Amino acid sequence: MSALPFSKLSAPLNALIAAIGLMAVAALTIPDMAGRTRLTLEVLLAGIWVVYCLQLIETLITQRTRGVRDRMPAIAVDVLAVLVPLAAFLLDGTRDQSLYCAIWLLKPLRDSTFFRLMGRVLTNEARNLIGVTSVFGIVLFGAALAAYIIERDVQPDKFGSIPQAMWWAVVTLSTTGYGDVTPQSFIGRVLAGLIMMCGIGIFALWAGILATGFYEEVRRQDFVRTWQLVAAVPLFQRLGSAALVEIVRALRPRVVPAGTVICRKGETGDRMFFIVEGRVSVATPNPVELGSGSFFGEMALITGEPRSATVSAVTEVSLLSLYSVDFQMLSKSSPEIADIIRKTALERRGAPPKA
Amino acid sequence: MSALPFSKLSAPLNALIAAIGLMAVAALTIPDMAGRTRLTLEVLLAGIWVVYCLQLIETLITQRTRGVRDRMPAIAVDVLAVLVPLAAFLLDGTRDQSLYCAIWLLKPLRDSTFFRLMGRVLTNEARNLIGVTSVFGIVLFGAALAAYIIERDVQPDKFGSIPQAMWWAVVTLSTTGYGDVTPQSFIGRVLAGLIMMCGIGIFALWAGILATGFYEEVRRQDFVRTWQLVAAVPLFQRLGSAALVEIVRALRPRVVPAGTVICRKGETGDRMFFIVEGRVSVATPNPVELGSGSFFGEMALITGEPRSATVSAVTEVSLLSLYSVDFQMLSKSSPEIADIIRKTALERRGAPPKA
Amino acid sequence: MSALPFSKLSAPLNALIAAIGLMAVAALTIPDMAGRTRLTLEVLLAGIWVVYCLQLIETLITQRTRGVRDRMPAIAVDVLAVLVPLAAFLLDGTRDQSLYCAIWLLKPLRDSTFFRLMGRVLTNEARNLIGVTSVFGIVLFGAALAAYIIERDVQPDKFGSIPQAMWWAVVTLSTTGYGDVTPQSFIGRVLAGLIMMCGIGIFALWAGILATGFYEEVRRQDFVRTWQLVAAVPLFQRLGSAALVEIVRALRPRVVPAGTVICRKGETGDRMFFIVEGRVSVATPNPVELGSGSFFGEMALITGEPRSATVSAVTEVSLLSLYSVDFQMLSKSSPEIADIIRKTALERRGAPPKA
Amino acid sequence: MSALPFSKLSAPLNALIAAIGLMAVAALTIPDMAGRTRLTLEVLLAGIWVVYCLQLIETLITQRTRGVRDRMPAIAVDVLAVLVPLAAFLLDGTRDQSLYCAIWLLKPLRDSTFFRLMGRVLTNEARNLIGVTSVFGIVLFGAALAAYIIERDVQPDKFGSIPQAMWWAVVTLSTTGYGDVTPQSFIGRVLAGLIMMCGIGIFALWAGILATGFYEEVRRQDFVRTWQLVAAVPLFQRLGSAALVEIVRALRPRVVPAGTVICRKGETGDRMFFIVEGRVSVATPNPVELGSGSFFGEMALITGEPRSATVSAVTEVSLLSLYSVDFQMLSKSSPEIADIIRKTALERRGAPPKA
Repeated sequence: MSALPFSKLSAPLNALIAAIGLMAVAALTIPDMAGRTRLTLEVLLAGIWVVYCLQLIETLITQRTRGVRDRMPAIAVDVLAVLVPLAAFLLDGTRDQSLYCAIWLLKPLRDSTFFRLMGRVLTNEARNLIGVTSVFGIVLFGAALAAYIIERDVQPDKFGSIPQAMWWAVVTLSTTGYGDVTPQSFIGRVLAGLIMMCGIGIFALWAGILATGFYEEVRRQDFVRTWQLVAAVPLFQRLGSAALVEIVRALRPRVVPAGTVICRKGETGDRMFFIVEGRVSVATPNPVELGSGSFFGEMALITGEPRSATVSAVTEVSLLSLYSVDFQMLSKSSPEIADIIRKTALERRGAPPKA
Repeated sequence: MSALPFSKLSAPLNALIAAIGLMAVAALTIPDMAGRTRLTLEVLLAGIWVVYCLQLIETLITQRTRGVRDRMPAIAVDVLAVLVPLAAFLLDGTRDQSLYCAIWLLKPLRDSTFFRLMGRVLTNEARNLIGVTSVFGIVLFGAALAAYIIERDVQPDKFGSIPQAMWWAVVTLSTTGYGDVTPQSFIGRVLAGLIMMCGIGIFALWAGILATGFYEEVRRQDFVRTWQLVAAVPLFQRLGSAALVEIVRALRPRVVPAGTVICRKGETGDRMFFIVEGRVSVATPNPVELGSGSFFGEMALITGEPRSATVSAVTEVSLLSLYSVDFQMLSKSSPEIADIIRKTALERRGAPPKA
Repeated sequence: MSALPFSKLSAPLNALIAAIGLMAVAALTIPDMAGRTRLTLEVLLAGIWVVYCLQLIETLITQRTRGVRDRMPAIAVDVLAVLVPLAAFLLDGTRDQSLYCAIWLLKPLRDSTFFRLMGRVLTNEARNLIGVTSVFGIVLFGAALAAYIIERDVQPDKFGSIPQAMWWAVVTLSTTGYGDVTPQSFIGRVLAGLIMMCGIGIFALWAGILATGFYEEVRRQDFVRTWQLVAAVPLFQRLGSAALVEIVRALRPRVVPAGTVICRKGETGDRMFFIVEGRVSVATPNPVELGSGSFFGEMALITGEPRSATVSAVTEVSLLSLYSVDFQMLSKSSPEIADIIRKTALERRGAPPKA
Repeated sequence: MSALPFSKLSAPLNALIAAIGLMAVAALTIPDMAGRTRLTLEVLLAGIWVVYCLQLIETLITQRTRGVRDRMPAIAVDVLAVLVPLAAFLLDGTRDQSLYCAIWLLKPLRDSTFFRLMGRVLTNEARNLIGVTSVFGIVLFGAALAAYIIERDVQPDKFGSIPQAMWWAVVTLSTTGYGDVTPQSFIGRVLAGLIMMCGIGIFALWAGILATGFYEEVRRQDFVRTWQLVAAVPLFQRLGSAALVEIVRALRPRVVPAGTVICRKGETGDRMFFIVEGRVSVATPNPVELGSGSFFGEMALITGEPRSATVSAVTEVSLLSLYSVDFQMLSKSSPEIADIIRKTALERRGAPPKA
């Protein structure tokens, strides 16, 4: 595995490589470019292609052990990223060869959880999105028809047919407004004003549907993710499933790299932290380390005093943070867990103080 | 019925026919077109007109049995779709004849539930939409007045009267910005900047009202639709009306065609399924079929293990799916139903495993 | 009162008169207009002015009895609508006289509840709106500064100073894009791309703040309005304040003019109705009239059957409607009221059937 | 402290000074300006610089006592605001000197809580915003590539390379639409239409994410702020933490300057007030003063009668207001507190009446 690290390239690095490759593709289309620069860029593309070859080989090797089906899209992207430029190189003798590397545009889709999220939102809301899109289509055709009838005699070169009028209609309905075609007659301008208003309305519906659908999907995914983390904190395992749902809603997951200062002495604190995995160091006179399952920063929530010590991450730490507002709500719905937190806080007060 | 299948054309097919017809209408307005192409398109229009005639006849026959009133709009659309082109053909001798087929733009409105939904949203929010529209009108007039006063001496040909200035104002307020008319004076440009900001604000209000209204109406319709499906699942019939409301909120309806793989062995599962109607096949060593009223996929929710078997639809299946997050919430509010699901899961573990 | 009906002009009529007046003002600015048309329009303006005089007089008379303070803005608008055109007529001898009638733009503000609503939203959200507006200002200045530095040597006539560059910046940041000024250099175009994206982000924040604020204010106002209506329905007076809050949230007020068909025999019904004021007629074999405090349409909610009779309004009727989904929720939280409704439904079944 | 009031300049005043400074910077870039005006503006800049020097000195002095770390950003802004123009004056001999004062653009960031709020929202939503931005990037590159292939032969001067086509793509995708570059071919125009629609969709996602994130953060901050104020009202201290959470949600904080009329006799009242700090005067026949911890305006909520007396602020008053709708909800969840309010109302009825 250590000899073939390419498939383990982190998502940001992968995205960066793809971005560099695509910029080179873009640069290569500039007509009057020195032969030397051109060569450099082509070598760069070849280099990225080699990296992608290695990545593909490793993906194929490591995937053998796992179920192929789950990683099918990743493998498909990797195969295309290698084969399409190769085929272009072998078959297409023109200068357009490098354009085929634009297939690397698919590379970021390979690792991203965001695109999967987007896909789900589009699937869930498909019915409404199709509905709004067909409203868009109907308004578009109606606008083009009306503009054609109104303006065809005034500007026969620009509104001489419905397809021509449709170009004006789409530019207006999306409020893009290139200005290459504008109605000249009074009626035509009133029509244009109405279409702009329709455009804003359709846009607004689209925004509302996407925003709502997106928000619900994110909320659901966050719940599932936090749920899995909460299971790793012993304190929460005593809770019934009702109280668990409450706390899962209230907690916010976060991963910090080793060395990060999580809270600083003297700051006012508006949240406490539970450690899912990793270790933190509390900078008291005789420093203490806390490990998985511990919590800290609870004093600030209970007393409202500033943080009594700086806490920093010793290893990469996976945290769940609980905001003051949610702690109060938790106290209400599951008093038992709030009591445990309060007792620990009192004990720690007597013992060497913690953040 | 089988001899006259036209009124049973599914909504997508109906929309497709209308779209083809409208494209032909658009194409026929292109001035320099070969007589042959023109003839082909006109024959195409005639063909669609015949289909619509048959559809109308069938609609009239089948509607006799039902209450006419409920289907009134559908019949009106069908009648217009036939009569308007006919009247145009008989009365209008010019080349504009084919334009009258644009009445087919109404055809998609005939079947769509989305347009009914839109209509309700617009009715519910009418008061607020009128309010925002009148703000739009007031700002528009104010902007045109101010621009007229500021710019009339600088550009008398473009801001020479309030109606002329209003053209600039509507193009600016909707942030379309054709650029055919722009203020030249400093004050005029400051005014333009302010109007653009107002435009964005008005747009934002419109978006907010439509998005909120749309979301509420969808939520209400979903509830009613799911409610009817839930009634068909015996498991839920033991619940009191309070718990019923909860579960109706939590379930999501979905229809899959025969042959679809609903869940796949080895996948991680985040939801379980209830069968409203239809049959599914569970691909265990000795395959099992489950029918209406059964549920499957519950193991993944309870144990968090990957799916233990692939389940695919034997017939068209109407499903209700319950996400992991909602299952937890359901456990809280109606423990009885969660218990039944858990017990079945345990029995199935002993018995041949299911997804 | 009956001799001076002008202050009782309904809001839509008032808005219409103002709109006609403003259109006449706009038309009068068209330079080459026949003297005759001009005269007609001026007479029209004079006529509206007389109506507004009478309206002012009546407002003053009727207001004496009430507290002046509450109606102050209305009186101020009425006084200005009369005095400003008068002053213009007396003092300004130019053709701009009629422009002063644009003060009538304020007239719709006089009666509209929407503008009061808008005012409240803007007040509530002032802090956030100012914040976003200052972000807008900072980005605008930064963009103009950067564009000035980048483009001043390339296009000294268009980016020769920061104020000039600011014109380009505001047109770009609001995504209006007139196109009269565009960056030519590569860096300038990259900058433009970034500014457009910032513009969309700022716009999005604005939209979010206004939409949220608007929604909350509407929700609060609806509650207050419905609360007052609920008090007039005896059935609800038995409820404790907790259950009252629930039902007020669930009910939706609606006013229908005399003669309206409220529900039609054979339709599927998704809501029931409570009569706040007015009378409805139920078209059963021996028709029944129901008055204030009664309810109808409950059968459809309980049995799911289609409406059993057509109900129409005898007088103007103020109704509260309760949707099926909310009835289920009400059954859960206040079973007593749901029971009363169910019992009445059963009695009516035995008795002559109702909708 | 009183000798050095500069660091205590209120945020609005600070913003005003910065705005004046920036306007002077902008004005100084206008090429043909009289030497005199130029001198005046330069003196103005120098004056602001001196104010900022004094502000820096005071900030440093007063900060010594407090923890430096918390105020680090403020100090950094103050230092930069002084040093950057100074360095420019000493090192840069050109007319661009004054441009460096644009660093004052940072000054409003120094005090504003809004920018901190914005920062938090962007941090919380970073993952989603990056996701949407990368969708934007992918669509942008794809659009530029397609436009390059389609239009390079038609308009080689405008679509001659991918970077050139990208300019058109970003202008179209953001619906800015300068109109300096537009596709001419039919396919190119269809592509443009699709890109506009994508642009609207991406914009909508952005809006949804920012709006939702913003709303949640505001809600959380409001809770914390109100929570601190509620602690200062003795009436609320008897409540358990569960009821406290409820009331904190329901109350809305507000600060009014001395002399403000808070409610007016005869108005209809839709809220009551709790005094956190300061004193108000109730204008009854023998006027009463109420201080911190008192409440007033409760009669209007209970009886629905108009306000019985005018109440105005004697000092600056920090208030918490409770709307009618929230009072009803409070009555439901914490009857004890509603009872106290009702009893006080009854006592006051017997005693000299209050608002």
